[in-house]
Amino acid sequence: MSFETWWTELLPVGRSADSGGYFRLVYTHAELTCREWFRATATGIGLDVEIDGNGSLWAWWHSELAGPAVVLGSHLDSVRDGGAFDGPLGVVSSLAAVEALQRKGFQPTRPVAVVAFADEEGARFGIACAGSRLLTGELAPDRALALRDDNGVTMAEAATKAGLDTRTFGRDEDRLARIGSYVELHVEQGRGLIDMAAAVAVGSGIWPHGRYRFRFCGEANHAGTTLMSDRHDPMLGVARTALSVNELARRLNARGTLGRVLVTPNSTNGIPSEATGWVDVRAADTDTLEHVIDELAIRAALDAAELGVSLEFQEESVSPPVVFDEALAARVLDVLLQTRDTVPLLGTGAGHDAGILAHAGIPTAMLFVRNPTGISHSPQEFAETADAHAGVAALTEVLEALAS
Amino acid sequence: MSFETWWTELLPVGRSADSGGYFRLVYTHAELTCREWFRATATGIGLDVEIDGNGSLWAWWHSELAGPAVVLGSHLDSVRDGGAFDGPLGVVSSLAAVEALQRKGFQPTRPVAVVAFADEEGARFGIACAGSRLLTGELAPDRALALRDDNGVTMAEAATKAGLDTRTFGRDEDRLARIGSYVELHVEQGRGLIDMAAAVAVGSGIWPHGRYRFRFCGEANHAGTTLMSDRHDPMLGVARTALSVNELARRLNARGTLGRVLVTPNSTNGIPSEATGWVDVRAADTDTLEHVIDELAIRAALDAAELGVSLEFQEESVSPPVVFDEALAARVLDVLLQTRDTVPLLGTGAGHDAGILAHAGIPTAMLFVRNPTGISHSPQEFAETADAHAGVAALTEVLEALAS
Repeated sequence: MSFETWWTELLPVGRSADSGGYFRLVYTHAELTCREWFRATATGIGLDVEIDGNGSLWAWWHSELAGPAVVLGSHLDSVRDGGAFDGPLGVVSSLAAVEALQRKGFQPTRPVAVVAFADEEGARFGIACAGSRLLTGELAPDRALALRDDNGVTMAEAATKAGLDTRTFGRDEDRLARIGSYVELHVEQGRGLIDMAAAVAVGSGIWPHGRYRFRFCGEANHAGTTLMSDRHDPMLGVARTALSVNELARRLNARGTLGRVLVTPNSTNGIPSEATGWVDVRAADTDTLEHVIDELAIRAALDAAELGVSLEFQEESVSPPVVFDEALAARVLDVLLQTRDTVPLLGTGAGHDAGILAHAGIPTAMLFVRNPTGISHSPQEFAETADAHAGVAALTEVLEALAS
Repeated sequence: MSFETWWTELLPVGRSADSGGYFRLVYTHAELTCREWFRATATGIGLDVEIDGNGSLWAWWHSELAGPAVVLGSHLDSVRDGGAFDGPLGVVSSLAAVEALQRKGFQPTRPVAVVAFADEEGARFGIACAGSRLLTGELAPDRALALRDDNGVTMAEAATKAGLDTRTFGRDEDRLARIGSYVELHVEQGRGLIDMAAAVAVGSGIWPHGRYRFRFCGEANHAGTTLMSDRHDPMLGVARTALSVNELARRLNARGTLGRVLVTPNSTNGIPSEATGWVDVRAADTDTLEHVIDELAIRAALDAAELGVSLEFQEESVSPPVVFDEALAARVLDVLLQTRDTVPLLGTGAGHDAGILAHAGIPTAMLFVRNPTGISHSPQEFAETADAHAGVAALTEVLEALAS
């Protein structure tokens, strides 16, 4: 099985010697190396590789065939210090599914593609699923290209340096019209399949998800000589917001996290001039999501007034809830149940490119592979080899059915 | 007056075009440029410049004379995004005082030196007054050289790259024995002289000062899929500590600041694996300082237990209170009162190399120059030209008296 070979080839790319975690942020050397691997590997099994107008890679099998294509895929980029599986497991499994059908002598009657979407994690420029959002037009190219990373580099500069033509960024009607269905395999990011004692599940939907920026601006001053009553300390605004979002998410049965901060000048002996916290909120429904963020924004505004600092609140992205296409999910379940007794259905709080395509009206399905640690976005993220094989087998069966 | 010329030469070095603030961290290009300026300027007025075994610069006037030297000086490095005056005002004023006596034809009977201590702010490697602490032996060279900046570069690596021989780092008996007295002029970092309506004050003492690191380690995980009850979120430990130190400092009439954080991996969509906060505490007496930090450390340990994260608490540096040498302060006051009606005495919550030398038994005095904004460690830090001139005049009178 080529799966192991490919997986092993990709494993050292962008891996930290310290933590064992991955740093494959979009358009960095590590991520570009993953792209080279994809191009060489897909070409090696006879696929035609192209890069779309938004930096995502597409490998076509029988692109000469007419009709809507069956597209499999995921992404190659990671969060900072992430795991090996989130993204690459789907890409490698998709290539392995195509190769399994090739070996079997299967001839598709519809074109098949494997896609590696650009910048799914949004770890560098702050907006998740940037590649698929640009493709569907949900993210305007001007806004995307002007985003800056922590070093002040814009997405336009990074993409250009990576050899892309940023003038082509934006909604791509022809490509969207060509996608008949999209199936994304992904490592599970929670403990659902552990509790269900199953290796593979079919996705039912994705929770709505919002990312928000709280930027508090105060007054830089000396930590030793400035009276406590004279201070305008923005760090305290971020601290209160971190505690508030945790408390609100617990109370309202949602998920709320402040996981990223940026402090200026970030000196031990100085009151900061600015402190920014990024907040991630998810909930089972949109009403709950809005309830959490509305209450959080009110609290932060009151906190800012009390602390004598200013607050700039910015909604960076909000993804509506996704319920995957019922007809496609039924078809996928039907295929899988031909060779299995049960196949669980699983909802998720994690966002995926599949959600972006579903929102654009493309019939979309997901398969999840069990993660024995239940931990993701961390070096501890994992999938047993047997479970990864079960994922490839399921994806192969689904591809064979959909491409017939 | 050469003061303006020199001040203007130094003004653009390491200045941010965005904020107007200064980034002159030790052994960076900007700080090395300040050192070149010092060497050229001191040499230009006939002083003999040498670098001591710990990276500080000394410019000697009549080093051939016997007896204990009169040393003036301050530092050239800055905090991140700091002001132009904290440090350089003292160095430039010291050179201007020497030049004023030269022009007047004054012949010192004791050697005179102007020193620019290395790494006073500790903004890069975390320990304030590293140059003077190394000189007196208060900071062990092994510990200092192993300190790392935010990019993982050690002080040893940075110093070596700057052309220093790190084997000479450590207590320097001969140099210490040669210092008869040390007088440091510094921009005021609070509002004392505004309220007193005076341009220059004599320092009475420095509050005790501690810096502490609170490192919380939890479990990196996905912000969307991890149940709130399954989390081990270290960011919440830092957030609680930021609020606790503020509350304790207010209640106990001290100063307490959490101004620096480091979060790993610092992603919007991930619960961090680690979050570290650096805390700065100052108080009028050691008992109060210890009360604040003891209570803070207990609270942080309880917070860590409640959050299911670990806590590593590290005292990075503690400076005892400084009461400046009474005989020297009386002499300085006496000199200044010959040409002025009143000269205020001023205590300060800010640490200085003068405090380190005083603690090592060297007779030490400080002069403060009014800061009309009352703000320091910020681009808003300022001194009016007339007040800076008053500072140079005062320092010149003091030098003339001490070197006679």
